[in-house]
Amino acid sequence: MRNYYVDQFSFVAHKFTRSEIRELLKLVGQPGLISFAGGLPSPETFDKEVIKELSCYVIDNYGDIALQYSQTEGCTELIDALINWAKTEDIAITPKNMLITTASQQGLYLLGKVFLDPGDKVICSVPTYLGAIQAFRTFRAEFITVPLDPHTGMETDQVEAILARDRECVKFIYTVPDFQNPAGVTLSLKKRKHLLELADKYQILILEDSPYRWLRYVGEDIPSIQTLDQGQGRVLTLYTFSKIFVPGFRLGWAVGPENIIEQMTIAKQGVDLCTPAFNQLVAAEFINRGLLAKQIANNIRLYTKKQKIMLEAMDSMMPKVEGLFWTRPEGGLFLWFCMPEGYDTKEMMKKALEKKVAYVPGSAFDPHGGCGHCARINFSFPPQELIPVGVGRLAEVVKAEVMATKSR
Amino acid sequence: MRNYYVDQFSFVAHKFTRSEIRELLKLVGQPGLISFAGGLPSPETFDKEVIKELSCYVIDNYGDIALQYSQTEGCTELIDALINWAKTEDIAITPKNMLITTASQQGLYLLGKVFLDPGDKVICSVPTYLGAIQAFRTFRAEFITVPLDPHTGMETDQVEAILARDRECVKFIYTVPDFQNPAGVTLSLKKRKHLLELADKYQILILEDSPYRWLRYVGEDIPSIQTLDQGQGRVLTLYTFSKIFVPGFRLGWAVGPENIIEQMTIAKQGVDLCTPAFNQLVAAEFINRGLLAKQIANNIRLYTKKQKIMLEAMDSMMPKVEGLFWTRPEGGLFLWFCMPEGYDTKEMMKKALEKKVAYVPGSAFDPHGGCGHCARINFSFPPQELIPVGVGRLAEVVKAEVMATKSR
Repeated sequence: MRNYYVDQFSFVAHKFTRSEIRELLKLVGQPGLISFAGGLPSPETFDKEVIKELSCYVIDNYGDIALQYSQTEGCTELIDALINWAKTEDIAITPKNMLITTASQQGLYLLGKVFLDPGDKVICSVPTYLGAIQAFRTFRAEFITVPLDPHTGMETDQVEAILARDRECVKFIYTVPDFQNPAGVTLSLKKRKHLLELADKYQILILEDSPYRWLRYVGEDIPSIQTLDQGQGRVLTLYTFSKIFVPGFRLGWAVGPENIIEQMTIAKQGVDLCTPAFNQLVAAEFINRGLLAKQIANNIRLYTKKQKIMLEAMDSMMPKVEGLFWTRPEGGLFLWFCMPEGYDTKEMMKKALEKKVAYVPGSAFDPHGGCGHCARINFSFPPQELIPVGVGRLAEVVKAEVMATKSR
Repeated sequence: MRNYYVDQFSFVAHKFTRSEIRELLKLVGQPGLISFAGGLPSPETFDKEVIKELSCYVIDNYGDIALQYSQTEGCTELIDALINWAKTEDIAITPKNMLITTASQQGLYLLGKVFLDPGDKVICSVPTYLGAIQAFRTFRAEFITVPLDPHTGMETDQVEAILARDRECVKFIYTVPDFQNPAGVTLSLKKRKHLLELADKYQILILEDSPYRWLRYVGEDIPSIQTLDQGQGRVLTLYTFSKIFVPGFRLGWAVGPENIIEQMTIAKQGVDLCTPAFNQLVAAEFINRGLLAKQIANNIRLYTKKQKIMLEAMDSMMPKVEGLFWTRPEGGLFLWFCMPEGYDTKEMMKKALEKKVAYVPGSAFDPHGGCGHCARINFSFPPQELIPVGVGRLAEVVKAEVMATKSR
């Protein structure tokens, strides 16, 4: 490849590296490979007949709007549908507290654009969502990390210690409170309340990224941080249709203080003008007909089963080794799989690929490159019957790795 | 509105102002108003029955792909369809020279992200496309402007003078060569070649923004700068489906040197991961069935007629005043309407809105706020029969303005 104009690239472009997760997605199609790598919903959940019918309905009834440019804020029809639906979810929103985004990745990016200058800091847990690292890094932001407790989520005491020591330049606290990506861990109610106290005490924004909120398989629901905030403007929450409707429509929404939503809207004008109106109107109709609630129930049914199959396979096939463990999430799409310290899942990935199984190495989820002995394992995408086969292959790889280490 | 966290906003967010053009789009719906403001295609051009059929076809035949996440580069089906189609258009492209974007506004933004650091400079004409000003400004870039000749386009001699004087910090030359937005002016063949010479001489990239390329109503086609470049990597070109298919699907594509496309792809991962697969696949099928060529022919037929109606109405109804003129573009969606120097079309807009007619004031199209006596007038969107009515209202406003000035 010839290099044109490289000396004229921007500071960040010189540092651009491809997202490991996106590159790994390309492996999903490789014949015979069982992928636990992507964060993809199961295609079984796509209600094709309904989407066909809704597509025709939207063009018949809203054609001139659906196929035209729309306002940057989002189509009124979708905003109204979400506000109605949110009532049942106990999130108080008005059109001015809300922005429709080209899925929640764009929400992360726009929030970054509104807050981050070079050298600014974001507090997050390790591991944390790769896409957030990638988005914030393009603004040359830095990360201050705290550990993630496998049962109660990010260590908010350590967040407090950081803020007490060095409030300056920290722009927001980033958290995925529900069934976190990558670890599947849920932030406890106590810690959610603690974060809100910190927001008050240190005048700092909480960025709540909540793509999996509605995918709970066991246990009691914990209110979102947005709900706990009770309209006090301390939280900006990002939601997406990708895990509860379809990802291929690229739709999400942000909820937060009016003035921050306003700034994100202006930023969005420069980024893509507006989210596809057609897609928004299909989603609006999907909600208005009560189909979103139904699909969520279906997804929960399917993913509960898939997770159970995976956990059973892991329990029965993985070697018993001290320090080897995986999380047992109450929802979401992922398990977090940890080898004993010192192992390198990125190296091990080569052997896994030879055995035709894939995951995402843990280091992708730590802005400072730690978590190298861990891996993210997805159970929503692979077909049920292939989950035990894939886990079997992975167990073989893990066993060989453990044996090789012992014999050294 | 309460202001949350404003002291913590990024440097650019403090300077965010809403795009005038986007705000004006909101007026389009006002009852009884005839809008020449937006840059919207006519809804008459939307082939609803075909899009319904294609939507069903895509879900039936590609459902699992169409509704799923897709690769950041774009769906292979659309890339292949465009490459095939481009053959008839004489643009040599390969999948590696091409990125599918969430319409061409995203293309502008991503190119900005790859090249622009604070204080960097972009050379453009005045007037120039508002969305480009907005996108580049969010990177804290500055603009060096050259005049736009109403017959031959941006003054490339002045571009050369700027580069000879101050090459440093200039990152690229931005041009809309075909039926420019806002003025409708086309860059002459001689000037296109001159820009390529400058690209060689000063090692500078040309950003060719070409949304209207296929909408020529009179005169001979001039090759794109991309075509004239003959694969030498001096040009990054942005295209969009918004004016030749539908804007509501938010689809565009970028063509350029492989390494720049690669950097834009990585930037896109952080911005929105991928463009909606469903929308891409519908567009691919639209091309593969030969419907794009047909729609372009239809659009040309319709817009030729609308432009003729508008020019005739202008000719017959506008007052004869020295210094008052408008362009007679060979294609595209807009006329550029200039009052004599000293008039203020932004002020005049209040009276126009009272008379229920709208346009975009010229100052929106000059990064330094000039062009205050000009206005962009769109003829693609308003229904044919309303064009003379709207021009009549505008002529009244202009006459009153001229009279008021004379009596002062």
